[in-house]
Order: sequence, then C-alpha cells, then structure tokens
Amino acid sequence: MSLDPLVFDVFAKNCTSRPVMDIIGGRWGILTLAALQQGTHRFNELRRRVDGVSEKMLSQTLHALERYGLVVREVRSAIPPRVEYSLTDSGARIAASLVDLIELVEAEMPQITIAQERYDAREDPAVVPQKPTR
Amino acid sequence: MSLDPLVFDVFAKNCTSRPVMDIIGGRWGILTLAALQQGTHRFNELRRRVDGVSEKMLSQTLHALERYGLVVREVRSAIPPRVEYSLTDSGARIAASLVDLIELVEAEMPQITIAQERYDAREDPAVVPQKPTR
Repeated sequence: MSLDPLVFDVFAKNCTSRPVMDIIGGRWGILTLAALQQGTHRFNELRRRVDGVSEKMLSQTLHALERYGLVVREVRSAIPPRVEYSLTDSGARIAASLVDLIELVEAEMPQITIAQERYDAREDPAVVPQKPTR
Repeated sequence: MSLDPLVFDVFAKNCTSRPVMDIIGGRWGILTLAALQQGTHRFNELRRRVDGVSEKMLSQTLHALERYGLVVREVRSAIPPRVEYSLTDSGARIAASLVDLIELVEAEMPQITIAQERYDAREDPAVVPQKPTR
C-alpha cells in the first residue's frame, strides 16, 4: 500500500474515504447494502426490507451508493417503468463485509444487553467522576 | 439462531441492536474501536489517532462503547490519575471486523473515486428524472 501513489486512510481527517465510510457505515447504508446482497431489489421491496427507512432517506442512500459505484440503478422498460437496484462488484465485496459485521453484532447482542443493563444500574457511574454526589 | 429465545435482527425497526449498530457503524465508533484494536490507549492518544474528533464526541463515543461492554475504562492511580481505554473480548471481535471493513473500503477507494467523478460529470443524471431541463 505504501507504494501506491494514492493512499487512503480513514483515520485522516481530510481523507476522501471519510464521507464514503459515513455512508457505508451509516444505519441506512449498512442495511441497504446488506439487503442488496440478497439480490436485486425494487425500491419498494428495499423499503419494506429496510424497516423504518423513509422514502427520502432510502432515495438519498441509494443515490450516494450509486454515485460511489457500489449500486447500479437500472430502469426496465415496462408500464410503469420498473426501477431495479443491484450491487456492483465493489458493492458486493463491501456488502459481504457488512453482513459479517451485522451477524457478529447480532451474535454479541446478548452480552451487549447484559453489559448495558449492568452499566445503567450503576449507582455512581465512573463516567462522571467529576461530579461527586454530595 | 432460530432456537434462541432472543433473536436480534438489525433489519427490524425496533430491535435493540439498531442503536448499538448506530454507534459501532458511526464515524467515531468505527475509528475508536479500530484504534483500540492496536492496543490500550489513553484519552488524548485516542484523540490524536482519531483525527478530527472533538473531545466531546470522543467522550460520548467511549461512554457508549463502555456501556455496551465493548470498551473498558480503567483508572490507574498516578498523579494525575491515568485513564486508559481498552477493548473487551466482544469489542475485540467487533473491532477486528471493522478493521477488515476499513481495509476493504480503503482498497476500493480508487474505483469509488473514479465512479464518483464519472457520476458527477453526468450532464443529465438519471437520479433526477422528475425534473426535465427545459
């Protein structure tokens, strides 16, 4: 990588990979890419699968993913025209990684839930040591 | 998974995995977990590594990650007290997956950049078919 004239580093504030990562890692980006990993979807199919997404947010997410070359939007001639979304090769590689992440997080949820309940039950959270209770 | 009484599904609107995923997939969550995969860090070390994060955002991110049992905050007795952050086992598993994702996205950035430039150069983007140019 260090021989590459273009080295992308998401840790660097001004790296162009940051806004890309924001879309990919954002709630709707993760779910849209992961849904498309199951195959081509029409807009309304995606909207049902990505439960809770608004029409506007899904539309914006798909445009961003299309702009980054991760999703292809195809209009099939029919009445009314059928618009289908699918992953590009880059999109499929990233979606596969996101599906791994989702499965991992879902598998960790029992421990995460226990940790969260324990944390919330703490009487004197260490996170606010600057504010003594007296 | 289907035998488990608690099945977490990030696609479901009200699943408690959604806010967890928001933190993990969010810009500062991804970078903080990935930074900690390199080992224990003090607050200011993390702030330098996660370039561009504000003190407030890093603090909020660390509290959320600690609450979810992904990060441990330890106060070492010293003058002034030394506060160190490290990953739990759950945190380390998720961080490893995030590092994979980061490396993948960084590797895809040349294609993503080309796609983006091509998209932005389009005279009549298909994304706004509702607005004819006349």
